[in-house]
Amino acid sequence: MKHKIITISRQFGSGGRTIGKKLAEQLSIPCYDAELVEKLAQQSGFQAEYVAEHGEYRPHSSWLANAFSSGTTGNFPTNQDYLWEIQRRIILELAEKSACIIVGRCADYILRDHADCLTVFIHASMAYRADRIVRVYGEREEAPEKRLKNKDKRRSAYYRYYTDMEWGDCLNYHLALDSGVLGIDRCASLIASVYEGEVSPKER
Amino acid sequence: MKHKIITISRQFGSGGRTIGKKLAEQLSIPCYDAELVEKLAQQSGFQAEYVAEHGEYRPHSSWLANAFSSGTTGNFPTNQDYLWEIQRRIILELAEKSACIIVGRCADYILRDHADCLTVFIHASMAYRADRIVRVYGEREEAPEKRLKNKDKRRSAYYRYYTDMEWGDCLNYHLALDSGVLGIDRCASLIASVYEGEVSPKER
Repeated sequence: MKHKIITISRQFGSGGRTIGKKLAEQLSIPCYDAELVEKLAQQSGFQAEYVAEHGEYRPHSSWLANAFSSGTTGNFPTNQDYLWEIQRRIILELAEKSACIIVGRCADYILRDHADCLTVFIHASMAYRADRIVRVYGEREEAPEKRLKNKDKRRSAYYRYYTDMEWGDCLNYHLALDSGVLGIDRCASLIASVYEGEVSPKER
Repeated sequence: MKHKIITISRQFGSGGRTIGKKLAEQLSIPCYDAELVEKLAQQSGFQAEYVAEHGEYRPHSSWLANAFSSGTTGNFPTNQDYLWEIQRRIILELAEKSACIIVGRCADYILRDHADCLTVFIHASMAYRADRIVRVYGEREEAPEKRLKNKDKRRSAYYRYYTDMEWGDCLNYHLALDSGVLGIDRCASLIASVYEGEVSPKER
């Protein structure tokens, strides 16, 4: 793997995906987000909705986790393990192919040994994200705070399960930004300025 | 409090203090680090060495914590609580007086309700920091990794004790940067570019 990659991990509603798309335009490199879901659906045979849900979130409860494991017990791989393995391979192939941006899906962990991978975490306050998901996604079904907490919890559990690391721990990212305070455009331009410079240490 | 402040929390050896000094030059505002220790020594009556040690680190063990509490038991304030209170007041006064940079000492927490406070966390890998403290400070007494782990652990415990928050959790900082990967100069210029723009949210 010899291309410069940016991975963006993000809290739900923080604008990580939008930042990825803006960055892709600024840097003229592809950004994989929904495109990853499509590839994963094609290669796994599962429907895109199923992949979007199970390629990044742990199931709601242990009861569901068991049901979800297709009735297997013990150490047999679950559907989610199967998706994880295909997802891992797709991400490694993308990183091999060209410079790109990858949003979510533990790409920071999967590419951790990649010398030129810039790992980014985007987060924002609950109030900012709640306001934003209602405006951007028009989400109304349940209280936005409840939905955000649930999404964060399950993404965090998924990340911990497959990486053994803590989601959102500063130490795992080269750059962690509060999009609510800095603004989405400034986040994109900060990341671009780092990417366009040298990623490796220049001086100490 | 109406001035723009930057607080820099940092892992030991990550160059947070150097970044603070560089930023101070670039932005032409004061940076308080050792200066804070001096002020604290003057106002508390303790020696500067004592203040440097106990104004940011929890004692080594619970036995020491008790000894350190001057023999008091129950809920009586310890020397460290007394230092914390003076430190808190000094930081609030500095933020009231003029725009500035404050390194360490839970300033991010103390100024959390300050509208124009940009909170930064600087970290780096153990290998980078171990190499750096030997080069910069010429530290040789014990294995640098051991010293770093001890310092991190005690700073983190101090932070948790007085703030009830997790030191190094991305969510507590607007900007968290890996100085080992980005380089100290780039960290300073990234922070300066955010500071010189608007800190408050511009668009969502």
